[in-house]
Amino acid sequence: MLPVIFVAYLSTLDESFEVFGIDMVRPAFADRISAKNIAFRQEIMDLMDAAKLRRVVTSFHPDYVLHLAAFSSVAYSWKHPEETFLNNSTIFMNLISAVRELNEPCRILSVGSSEEYGHVPEDALPLSETYPLQPNSPYAVARVTQERLSDMYVREFGMDIVMTRSFNHIGPGQDKRFVVPSFVDRMKRIGESGADSGEIETGNIEIIRDFVDVRDVVKAYYRLLEAGKKGEVYNVCSGKGIRLSDLIEIIAGILEVQITTRVNPEYVRPNDIAKIIGDPNKIYRELGWKAEINCEQTLRDLVGKMIL
Amino acid sequence: MLPVIFVAYLSTLDESFEVFGIDMVRPAFADRISAKNIAFRQEIMDLMDAAKLRRVVTSFHPDYVLHLAAFSSVAYSWKHPEETFLNNSTIFMNLISAVRELNEPCRILSVGSSEEYGHVPEDALPLSETYPLQPNSPYAVARVTQERLSDMYVREFGMDIVMTRSFNHIGPGQDKRFVVPSFVDRMKRIGESGADSGEIETGNIEIIRDFVDVRDVVKAYYRLLEAGKKGEVYNVCSGKGIRLSDLIEIIAGILEVQITTRVNPEYVRPNDIAKIIGDPNKIYRELGWKAEINCEQTLRDLVGKMIL
Repeated sequence: MLPVIFVAYLSTLDESFEVFGIDMVRPAFADRISAKNIAFRQEIMDLMDAAKLRRVVTSFHPDYVLHLAAFSSVAYSWKHPEETFLNNSTIFMNLISAVRELNEPCRILSVGSSEEYGHVPEDALPLSETYPLQPNSPYAVARVTQERLSDMYVREFGMDIVMTRSFNHIGPGQDKRFVVPSFVDRMKRIGESGADSGEIETGNIEIIRDFVDVRDVVKAYYRLLEAGKKGEVYNVCSGKGIRLSDLIEIIAGILEVQITTRVNPEYVRPNDIAKIIGDPNKIYRELGWKAEINCEQTLRDLVGKMIL
Repeated sequence: MLPVIFVAYLSTLDESFEVFGIDMVRPAFADRISAKNIAFRQEIMDLMDAAKLRRVVTSFHPDYVLHLAAFSSVAYSWKHPEETFLNNSTIFMNLISAVRELNEPCRILSVGSSEEYGHVPEDALPLSETYPLQPNSPYAVARVTQERLSDMYVREFGMDIVMTRSFNHIGPGQDKRFVVPSFVDRMKRIGESGADSGEIETGNIEIIRDFVDVRDVVKAYYRLLEAGKKGEVYNVCSGKGIRLSDLIEIIAGILEVQITTRVNPEYVRPNDIAKIIGDPNKIYRELGWKAEINCEQTLRDLVGKMIL
């Protein structure tokens, strides 16, 4: 979803862009990119193919790379820790290697995750970038590794990399494999069935997360590519925490249905962190970015425009 | 060299051992292991072959794994950063994966490096394990990653891993690709040529390092396998720093030759760290281990027994 929304954001700007998209499958959005100021090309490939990636990078010679690719499911990483870690680390190294060989100015935005902080005591919230990392999933260790590699490549090889620790995304267009769209999807079905109440199964909905609207996230990424400090890491977050059960209530209000919830232990992640809230002060202070779309608005848009 | 000396140490103990050695080439030492209390087998293989490693681990079902395998040259890692990082991380994950599938009690000693500390100010010396890591080479980032992975696998998967940050090794049997044996080798040649003086080319010999005799190192590893605390990391070091130029003088004294040195910029590592000394207090306090062979003795033995 994020690449579509990123390109949609570019289409609102006054400049012209050449965009080269890489994905493993033909992205559903490819046909939807038709802005006048954007020339779009794409390649269906696996970043594990280092030689092919080198050819693609050499032929396109990007000025900016927005690196979003990864096995991004924490749950999957628990079941396949070695595969997740090695895939995510390898594709990043393949990218770095290709850009390094290019030997031209090229800024990479390395997108990390709030998961890097691991289990944090409540008095450490909101988390600032200086808080020590203790990643507690294979996914999170891969993210921290990517950050360490980035730091080393900037300091020792002079590469131009900016890093994020991005907190939970939410927004219209998000796939229903993700938690909030999956709530919306099931609650919509209840509404559409004509019932005015129903039950949904959930994981642990007492957890509190810092959700950022993806339309705000792409603006942050654009600003970071444009003006972030090389070698620095930035939280991309709202600074506000919301409990999943409260999100469900807001959605129920929008849909005008009564919802009861039941925890299915199968959906409860091992070692899930109770409460995560980020401190967005650094990116605001340095780049003037802050999350602008409030949670209720996001949920209204998600309910209205969700791709089912 | 270290595996031979480790097995030599086992041969001095009262217990019996089954040892399974894995190396990429037939190790020169294989024929030299013939202690009565040791049954030795080996496999010539690349740890990158995850399936084969799984078969080997499953058939041997080790109680202890001493994981020393890696591209261990910092210099090589500067020239081949992606290859070094990915090889070292992948072989470790393959090992972890194989041992995890075994699902039997098995302790792994994950050997790391003083390089993990990176550039440190002199007032931080001697380095204790709590000092923040800032790895400054691809090799060092891979080592830190291995440590983070170990920490995560202990905390989240209940595995039994003990970690080291091992400082520079030195000792009889060490290959002359390493710095100190390469000095000894060239200085011996000067002596054997009948000359009583000569010149050798060096890298930066003003750097100060904490050298530990490899015969002390293997005792530390044995103690750590036996009684180290799961999930903990231990410096393996002498606590004393010695300048490379002073080592050269000691060797010259033993060989009774006059040596002048000349720096060849090609041998100077980029970003080399001026002074590294470790704090060996934790392993001494918890396990009673300390380095016992002093540097002069090590050098005498190295000069006498060096394998040319």
